[in-house]
Amino acid sequence: MYNEKDEKYLDCINNVAHVGHCHPDVVEAGAKQMELLNTNSRFLHDNLVLYAQRLQATLPEKLSVCYFVNSGSEANDLALRLAWQYTGHKDIITLENAYHGHVSSLIDISPYKFQQMACAEPSQHVHVALSPDIYRGKYCEDHPDPATAYAENVKDIIEQAHKKGRKIAAFIAESLQSCGGQVIPPVGYFQKVAQHVRNAGGIFIADEVQVGFGRVGTHFWGFQIQGEDFVPDIVTMGKPIGNGHPMSCVITTREVAESFMSSGMEYFNTFGGNPVSCAIGLAVLDVIEKEDLQGNALHIGGYLTRLLYDLKKRHLLVGDVRGRGLFIGLDLVRNRDKRTPATAEAQDVIYRLKEQRILLSADGPHRNVLKFKPPMCFSREDAELVVEKIDQILTDLEKTLGLQMSEAVISENGHTKRKEPSDENGLVHPSIGSSHKNTGTLPHDKKTKKRLKT
Amino acid sequence: MYNEKDEKYLDCINNVAHVGHCHPDVVEAGAKQMELLNTNSRFLHDNLVLYAQRLQATLPEKLSVCYFVNSGSEANDLALRLAWQYTGHKDIITLENAYHGHVSSLIDISPYKFQQMACAEPSQHVHVALSPDIYRGKYCEDHPDPATAYAENVKDIIEQAHKKGRKIAAFIAESLQSCGGQVIPPVGYFQKVAQHVRNAGGIFIADEVQVGFGRVGTHFWGFQIQGEDFVPDIVTMGKPIGNGHPMSCVITTREVAESFMSSGMEYFNTFGGNPVSCAIGLAVLDVIEKEDLQGNALHIGGYLTRLLYDLKKRHLLVGDVRGRGLFIGLDLVRNRDKRTPATAEAQDVIYRLKEQRILLSADGPHRNVLKFKPPMCFSREDAELVVEKIDQILTDLEKTLGLQMSEAVISENGHTKRKEPSDENGLVHPSIGSSHKNTGTLPHDKKTKKRLKT
Repeated sequence: MYNEKDEKYLDCINNVAHVGHCHPDVVEAGAKQMELLNTNSRFLHDNLVLYAQRLQATLPEKLSVCYFVNSGSEANDLALRLAWQYTGHKDIITLENAYHGHVSSLIDISPYKFQQMACAEPSQHVHVALSPDIYRGKYCEDHPDPATAYAENVKDIIEQAHKKGRKIAAFIAESLQSCGGQVIPPVGYFQKVAQHVRNAGGIFIADEVQVGFGRVGTHFWGFQIQGEDFVPDIVTMGKPIGNGHPMSCVITTREVAESFMSSGMEYFNTFGGNPVSCAIGLAVLDVIEKEDLQGNALHIGGYLTRLLYDLKKRHLLVGDVRGRGLFIGLDLVRNRDKRTPATAEAQDVIYRLKEQRILLSADGPHRNVLKFKPPMCFSREDAELVVEKIDQILTDLEKTLGLQMSEAVISENGHTKRKEPSDENGLVHPSIGSSHKNTGTLPHDKKTKKRLKT
Repeated sequence: MYNEKDEKYLDCINNVAHVGHCHPDVVEAGAKQMELLNTNSRFLHDNLVLYAQRLQATLPEKLSVCYFVNSGSEANDLALRLAWQYTGHKDIITLENAYHGHVSSLIDISPYKFQQMACAEPSQHVHVALSPDIYRGKYCEDHPDPATAYAENVKDIIEQAHKKGRKIAAFIAESLQSCGGQVIPPVGYFQKVAQHVRNAGGIFIADEVQVGFGRVGTHFWGFQIQGEDFVPDIVTMGKPIGNGHPMSCVITTREVAESFMSSGMEYFNTFGGNPVSCAIGLAVLDVIEKEDLQGNALHIGGYLTRLLYDLKKRHLLVGDVRGRGLFIGLDLVRNRDKRTPATAEAQDVIYRLKEQRILLSADGPHRNVLKFKPPMCFSREDAELVVEKIDQILTDLEKTLGLQMSEAVISENGHTKRKEPSDENGLVHPSIGSSHKNTGTLPHDKKTKKRLKT
């Protein structure tokens, strides 16, 4: 990525430019179709059918009906409409810190957004479940079965709702929570939640807007990490789907689609599924396949995670490293025991990286989680460069804060040290260090925040 | 427009391909920018600023803040959010037969859609006002002041809402109603409505998604027909804005935007205002200007309206001709006195035109209004061709139905005949014939409907 002065930036955050900024194959496909025909006058175009078939082939067979729309927000809103119509119920269960889009129906189910408002109460039909976060959540990595425990919370919510005479239409969650702080739900959680929700007559919506299309490395879709025995009722897609072109998709089962159709209300979307969008979507799928970008996400993601894990060994500010493929979070803390979010420090890292022409962002409820979700062509060298720079910045910051590793290193090697788990994909699972008590505060918090606002 | 066999079609309905299908300038601008950069990582791009300035220049000065989004639906949903935040009120007044988009918040305010459902009741916060339709509405062209009468209906609704303790956030209307049946509100209506709504603490949203960008000929925006003394608080744009590229815009006043900002909730839209969309938007504005497409809409629209008016003189099936620029409705009736909608006949016209490779559609609550909203490069020859074909089809249909003009012609020349008004733009204002009592029914209604469903 280059700025207006032709200066090169390393982009570690752009999950929209999925197959790489301005990928020539995608540009060519788009330009070619723009020249030929770009319309939607309710007439069918072959691209639409071809593209629906290709997308469907990446998913379990049950998910077989595609609706093409223009943004992740349009996709999630349509998912809600499908759920409402299919179940005849109204209530939605969403997760703490969830973000599902910017249209009004989605602000309602996005605590990440509505909690920014003065009046932060959810709407009557919205229930907020615990985030299945085993680092900062209620049930952590030391819990014997966090998947079941978090799913039980959903069950409780359903029971409470039923007592009030309310009925559950759907549970919605990102397959891996993005804005919520790069949270990876424990395996098995979705299955258990789905069971509770379906028992209540509701359906399961997997939001893949940020994490889909091979990013998690081992699978094409994030929800597939949960295991082959899990199939959502609706999957929504967005950002990476068109490498920046405004398009998105909702895929659901025949049953849900037929119920929607039987409502008598036709669904029409002016731009959705236009020939140019479909041509671009097809080209993106081709590039992912041709360049084995899912494989790259697996290998480079694994490598990057290991490098970040090494950082954790050297820096007290690093509380947790978690991720799958090229979707990784680095949770910065001021105190490893208390896991105090190092918000200002995270902002400082971002700002200093930007000065060195590396784009990274911080997110999560405390804005302290460094968020890696780069274009999928990210390389070993890119990973090394960004980690090297973060290393230097953390060293500087820790010097300023008076944080010293020696103590922690001792502790890491001592009784509280936990093993560094890694699975067959070379990915490192969440793990935490411990013991150092220093809660450093950056002396220039305010100044940093101000600078970053611009 | 060409089909897959390279057969040429005349497109009379595509207000999305506004400056012409695949206009080379627009394609070039899009392709060029796609090659350079297409991202939105919360970084600014010059195109965004340039485009906002250009759009703003087409509007009254007061409307000065642009939000770029991806579809008319996203635009209208954001308009509602702006209204809710600015006024602190919740209720929305919408028009009969209105259509404002497909996301859930807009289905709520779109009787055109929610009336298709079994449960056709509007939501509690939605109030449906009379459509200001002087051909089929409560106050017709024989009313001394339909603008005031229809606005009084809005005033009554506000008073009723206040009695229930409800508060009005906004009145929303298309500047000219499109799906609702090509309804042209009487001049002065918007001013009076705005006064009532603003007195109640609400704001006025003008939906220009279908009719904006010079289509009405005399003005760049449809609401401007109402006079220079009328300025909406929010204008929403869509379809034609990118000649098929998924993009749209909301423009509002500084006061409304500042109130939204002060809510503490950041507005972010992944694709909205990306450099490619803005490049395309700029190219569309350039083409409209360079090729004087607004002037073309005025002149060819006027010519087409006159040709259609001539049809009315010869065909009993034509109840009304109404329009502005290249936004014209031909209201087909089985009985001119009763104004019985000729729904099946309209569908038959559409179907037969399609057989002759002319694309036209029928809309309105009775689906009997032939809807002209062609690309703005529509020519005299195009106008002549479509009218000639409709002429033949109507002759055929009337023969089948046993409708004869002679009687009507006598009546047209008799005491009930109304003058054919035309303004300085060569446009013909709504006018009706009278007296013929024959209510013909097509013997093959069902068959026609079935064929057209495919």
